[in-house]
Amino acid sequence: MRNLRLVIAYDGTDFHGWQRQPNAPTVQASLEETLARITAAQVKLHGSGRTDAGVHAAGQVANFSTDCPIPGENLQKALNDRLPPSVRIKEVREVAEDFHARYHARAKTYRYRILRAPVCSPFFWRFVDHYPYPLDHRRMANAARLLEGEHDFTSFAASSADEDDDLPGAGNQPAAPESSPKRVPSMVRTILSSRLLWRPRMSLLTYEVRGNGFLHHMVRNIVGTLIEVGRGKLAPADVLRILEARDRTLAGPTAPARGLCLMKVEY
Amino acid sequence: MRNLRLVIAYDGTDFHGWQRQPNAPTVQASLEETLARITAAQVKLHGSGRTDAGVHAAGQVANFSTDCPIPGENLQKALNDRLPPSVRIKEVREVAEDFHARYHARAKTYRYRILRAPVCSPFFWRFVDHYPYPLDHRRMANAARLLEGEHDFTSFAASSADEDDDLPGAGNQPAAPESSPKRVPSMVRTILSSRLLWRPRMSLLTYEVRGNGFLHHMVRNIVGTLIEVGRGKLAPADVLRILEARDRTLAGPTAPARGLCLMKVEY
Repeated sequence: MRNLRLVIAYDGTDFHGWQRQPNAPTVQASLEETLARITAAQVKLHGSGRTDAGVHAAGQVANFSTDCPIPGENLQKALNDRLPPSVRIKEVREVAEDFHARYHARAKTYRYRILRAPVCSPFFWRFVDHYPYPLDHRRMANAARLLEGEHDFTSFAASSADEDDDLPGAGNQPAAPESSPKRVPSMVRTILSSRLLWRPRMSLLTYEVRGNGFLHHMVRNIVGTLIEVGRGKLAPADVLRILEARDRTLAGPTAPARGLCLMKVEY
Repeated sequence: MRNLRLVIAYDGTDFHGWQRQPNAPTVQASLEETLARITAAQVKLHGSGRTDAGVHAAGQVANFSTDCPIPGENLQKALNDRLPPSVRIKEVREVAEDFHARYHARAKTYRYRILRAPVCSPFFWRFVDHYPYPLDHRRMANAARLLEGEHDFTSFAASSADEDDDLPGAGNQPAAPESSPKRVPSMVRTILSSRLLWRPRMSLLTYEVRGNGFLHHMVRNIVGTLIEVGRGKLAPADVLRILEARDRTLAGPTAPARGLCLMKVEY
């Protein structure tokens, strides 16, 4: 058996997220079905983590086992010939037998784009949150920096506990075997970089965050909170207070999915 | 009555072109219906010219007469609140009573984007022609320059004579009255600028052409011919020979609509 690693980009607008689910188009299902047709065998794809409905990826990573002998480059071409143009395979590479896109992910980078122009371009609306109202970008940038480091991100995670997006990064382990006591997921993650960039020529405010793992809705909740800071509803230092409180109700609302893009997964 | 001038941007992917037609979504119909709902009166919109199914615009111009008293800025906001995100109003401005978006257009600028990367980004596929095969960009640039000036563009026009996109630019006149002898449309247009730009960082080859008017399919047929030059099937100087022959069969094929965008209309 070969273990193949895919790097995948997608426009998430018309998908119900990455993860396969009944009766809804998902990126994983689209890829698994296309791979099954090409390799003439059922394929189980392991993604680096879920992305929500409407969230995009420029560098999602997934792997699967196959006895199909097609060389990686030909498989890439066959996939791109058959997939919808909103899903593209950027790379296919044979990797070590034990490589697992989820358990071995050491860091992920997400980008969130906020368009500040009065009118949202018809060419960009799928990929930005259009927010034309006043925001103090400098306050937001200061707040963003304060999130760097190791923190318990309970306050920034989706409220339902079973919805965590991925296991912690470096040192990830497969889920505990059935016989073990029920695993309590850790809410501690390390943010390696958390920066806000303002591109005046494009009226584009970009938040880029790199970390060893992210809880469900974590980036969108951080962005929603940064917007509250930009509006003056919160002070930059409040993000530390919110982290310490471990209380979801204190952070800002979840920012819209369309602004979010998974840029890179590192191993 | 007020005469209002709109500047409109649209993603043409999901429209059957600009011009209203029965049983198909068009940009003109979408705008006229939204304007009718806002102004509570039927609206007849005059565009600067048609764009084909799948062709985009960053600066289409149209005008309409109305007795609606809503200020331009509020009308713009009301339109953008109701239109699909793939159509945006960039400007609404009151203009002289006799202004006509089609008859008074003096120049138009079109841009055609050819993506040269091996894989077409899922974020750009709607707006580029993906052409990853070998092309000699310098030959194409040389051929593009040769089209500048006043020429008879019969060889680059759609074969059916009644399909001309617009009247000639400067000095345009409304169609002759019914009583006149049948007007024979002139195929002479003046190309003010015809340039090819290569952006290696984006693997993007952009053709930009500015002229006093364009025949139906003219830009796409020029691009199809430039690609033949890039492939070595034609010499750069062949474009002059093709112009002189006034024979559609000598030029290259019509390049795909999705790469084309109407950038600007000048008055």
